[in-house]
Amino acid sequence: MENLDRLTDAIARRLFVELEASGRHVHVTEAQAQQLFGHGLTPKRPLSQPGQYLAEERVTVTGPKGSLERVAVLGPVRKEAQVEVSRTDAVALGVQPPVRLSGDVGGTPPVTLTGPNGELRLERGLMVARRHIHMTPEDAALQHVQDGDTVRLKTMTSRPVIFEDVAVRVSPDFRTYAHLDYDEANGCGYEPGDLGMILR
Amino acid sequence: MENLDRLTDAIARRLFVELEASGRHVHVTEAQAQQLFGHGLTPKRPLSQPGQYLAEERVTVTGPKGSLERVAVLGPVRKEAQVEVSRTDAVALGVQPPVRLSGDVGGTPPVTLTGPNGELRLERGLMVARRHIHMTPEDAALQHVQDGDTVRLKTMTSRPVIFEDVAVRVSPDFRTYAHLDYDEANGCGYEPGDLGMILR
Repeated sequence: MENLDRLTDAIARRLFVELEASGRHVHVTEAQAQQLFGHGLTPKRPLSQPGQYLAEERVTVTGPKGSLERVAVLGPVRKEAQVEVSRTDAVALGVQPPVRLSGDVGGTPPVTLTGPNGELRLERGLMVARRHIHMTPEDAALQHVQDGDTVRLKTMTSRPVIFEDVAVRVSPDFRTYAHLDYDEANGCGYEPGDLGMILR
Repeated sequence: MENLDRLTDAIARRLFVELEASGRHVHVTEAQAQQLFGHGLTPKRPLSQPGQYLAEERVTVTGPKGSLERVAVLGPVRKEAQVEVSRTDAVALGVQPPVRLSGDVGGTPPVTLTGPNGELRLERGLMVARRHIHMTPEDAALQHVQDGDTVRLKTMTSRPVIFEDVAVRVSPDFRTYAHLDYDEANGCGYEPGDLGMILR
């Protein structure tokens, strides 16, 4: 029975990837956390990726046309700030940020963050997150993909979609999840627990 | 040269369908327009489908959790009211309406409309519009599809997607356009003028 469970699990992990919707969120440096909140980040609950957490702290994100209130801040702190929004959010802010993988902030537009302790203008860092799949090396081997690959991802959701041009990132520090933003998640009718399938 | 233009056009119409993003909107009856606005609908500008227009009038749409202000009203008036929103909008309203083709209002949730002249509770009519392609009989013949078919639609957009389960509606009263809602349009990086391709 234990062998059967292991086999079932291996088959499932060879065929499917669990989907997750990523809401708008902000990453900040330690110095920026001090400036915005008067202290460092306070972990509230862990996220699916090991070591990552939702912080108790929230910020207002302001663009030329409007603001988004109570935006989630994710920890731990990073070396450079980054603000990840959906295109729907970007329209509300009045900006057209590029679609980028996390960390690729070169040439992204400026944006302003406001916390209870102060305001902070980021010279760059606003982006729409590019859809991507985090994978463990084991799951990547099972699915025959490598770090840096681009794949098609079929969603097994109520409004099924095949997302093209999905980035694959492989690391032993990851847990295997496909990350969509809320436009993509709503567009495909995503509900928590829904699965996707990598197509070749 | 004129023959060449005609040939080019026929090839393009055999291969592609122009995409269009449909924002949230409301359809009302003549009696409901009177109740909400104190008069009938006033055409502001024509829409892509012949005879359809954006009205000068706007309404507030209210659900159990929130409201959407200044929502577009489309004319001409219909036999029954209908409110088409995205899933993002539905979350703001605090409702989970089903994904439906326009006109298929049976079993959809209630919603409240407010105009300058009065308020109106609809016992049903709130839906997320199901993605669909309007086609002329000529274009449907060129693309080998029929009214009622379900196809896959590949978007030639900045975040390419293949939408599965796209409804095809054919009528001599239509102009050929694929209609996405704003979640879908933003999720695929749609810009006005972008094309899609029906896959088989």
